[in-house]
Amino acid sequence: MRLARRPVGEVRPEDWAHVTEPVPVPGDGEFLGRTRYLSLDPAMRGWLDDRPSYLPPVAIGEVMRAGSVVEVVASNHPEFQVGELVSGGFGVQEYAVSDGRGVIRVDPALAAPSTYLGALGMPGLTAYFGLLEVGALKEGDTVVVSGAAGAVGTVVGQIAKLKGCRVVGIAGGPEKCALLTEELGFDAAIDYRAEDVRKALHAHAPGGIDVYFDNVGGEILDAALTRLAMRARVVVCGAISQYNNETAVQGPSNYLSLLVRRARMEGFIVFDFARRYPEATRELAGWIGEGLIKVKEHVVDGGVDDFPAALGMLFRGENTGKLVLRVG
Amino acid sequence: MRLARRPVGEVRPEDWAHVTEPVPVPGDGEFLGRTRYLSLDPAMRGWLDDRPSYLPPVAIGEVMRAGSVVEVVASNHPEFQVGELVSGGFGVQEYAVSDGRGVIRVDPALAAPSTYLGALGMPGLTAYFGLLEVGALKEGDTVVVSGAAGAVGTVVGQIAKLKGCRVVGIAGGPEKCALLTEELGFDAAIDYRAEDVRKALHAHAPGGIDVYFDNVGGEILDAALTRLAMRARVVVCGAISQYNNETAVQGPSNYLSLLVRRARMEGFIVFDFARRYPEATRELAGWIGEGLIKVKEHVVDGGVDDFPAALGMLFRGENTGKLVLRVG
Repeated sequence: MRLARRPVGEVRPEDWAHVTEPVPVPGDGEFLGRTRYLSLDPAMRGWLDDRPSYLPPVAIGEVMRAGSVVEVVASNHPEFQVGELVSGGFGVQEYAVSDGRGVIRVDPALAAPSTYLGALGMPGLTAYFGLLEVGALKEGDTVVVSGAAGAVGTVVGQIAKLKGCRVVGIAGGPEKCALLTEELGFDAAIDYRAEDVRKALHAHAPGGIDVYFDNVGGEILDAALTRLAMRARVVVCGAISQYNNETAVQGPSNYLSLLVRRARMEGFIVFDFARRYPEATRELAGWIGEGLIKVKEHVVDGGVDDFPAALGMLFRGENTGKLVLRVG
Repeated sequence: MRLARRPVGEVRPEDWAHVTEPVPVPGDGEFLGRTRYLSLDPAMRGWLDDRPSYLPPVAIGEVMRAGSVVEVVASNHPEFQVGELVSGGFGVQEYAVSDGRGVIRVDPALAAPSTYLGALGMPGLTAYFGLLEVGALKEGDTVVVSGAAGAVGTVVGQIAKLKGCRVVGIAGGPEKCALLTEELGFDAAIDYRAEDVRKALHAHAPGGIDVYFDNVGGEILDAALTRLAMRARVVVCGAISQYNNETAVQGPSNYLSLLVRRARMEGFIVFDFARRYPEATRELAGWIGEGLIKVKEHVVDGGVDDFPAALGMLFRGENTGKLVLRVG
């Protein structure tokens, strides 16, 4: 799946070129993987725009960048054997050749392969470092997370709970909200499609918000800013409500509450914590094993050609938990 | 000068009631001061709005809150003698009674009395703690300050220079810009009325901005956000461009650069550093004495009834340096 042109606003089918090419042959020290699970992430939208960011944009004609789990089907690499499952940045394609750099071995005893793209992968690590490091979480904090039923949000809320915090999730629709409170242990959930978020935050975070973990931006960020506790931390993880904008991003007009509440708003990129991935992955795997973090995944079955449609689901809020495409 | 009604947008003469009342008589442990210098501060605009903030709003009918320097003209207080000059929050009135709490003695050997409202008063302390503590200034940083020719901005830039930083000031008009570079030692100045601020920042801060000290908000904040260096600190001190808005504050639509640049935006209120005022005042006085900080003041002569007109000057950018009303 190659990028055919730069999308304007919402990504359209014509922005992609699904091409058929010969399966590559692995050279010395390389292996060939066959894609089993493809990751779909909100951040992908940003990679399609030609503007300076934390990664270069995907070039026109380039295979779309994506994390995935592949099965090794041929190997000239001493450390990877045929039949093994591995996770890495193999792109949106059926087969990929790799020299093994940046590749993580899937341990089926630890978690399902798809979980290496979710709670044990980038979204889980993003939740972990964003909440604990950037958010400087303390026991007893009141934590609010937006996009709470998504890949990152579900993990943010559950880590905050196991650290002894009060957790309020903001999500779209009654099913997602029920998941948060009934299955994942959140103290409260706010349905932004049906409720006045500002009033609901007043009710559910009466002492103010100590950590606001933002995945969505826009109106919800602005509502959260009106309810900050003193010395609050606003973690800027993403702004999915703004990624398809054709006009300027909506800036948070209540940002002066940072001054009134002596609060800070801070952005981060999970890659900066790469050296600490092993320790974080071990801890996340432990919590998953103990049942302290329940893994929520939304699996769509299909082929590589279903990638564009699956990507669109993220921006319409159609997924609950980590969205993955299982390539049959 | 009492608040007659809550202003909507720009403050109007009808929002004030200038009333004549008997001069109060100091009781035991009190003194009577006669106002000599009145402070005019952008923050005053916020104190007039009836909304939750870091201080309660000035009540309708209340004497307007203001810092001032008064001369003790009668005293039943053992520590304050007739003829002394003292600084404190005495309000916009010709005479005030005080029990001495929160009052600072003016030492004419250290600085002119008016300087106790500027570089040695709240604006100087705001610059000091905002830049050094909230901004976490390091030698070699590139510092950009908006409202650079104002009471806070002039001190911010000069502290940054003496700490070994590159300093770029943003101000309105060629005279203010010339002051910054020719008299106060700034490395560059940007005239936001005549220049494209974004392009000018590109030219004058080619390696990006490490500390952006914001006094103005609006378009200039948005321009600065496009030029942040990695791990930049955005100090939210004020937003004078937005204080008279009748509609919502303009939020910074480029706030996602906090994510791309792993930067933080943090607000503060100088009062939180009150315990450290003595140490900071000593250091500021030392720098002023050595000529490392040049004091810029804009003195308007008049009476208490000139307060409304003088206040308006701030929002039209008519002052250079600290604006004070010398009460004749």
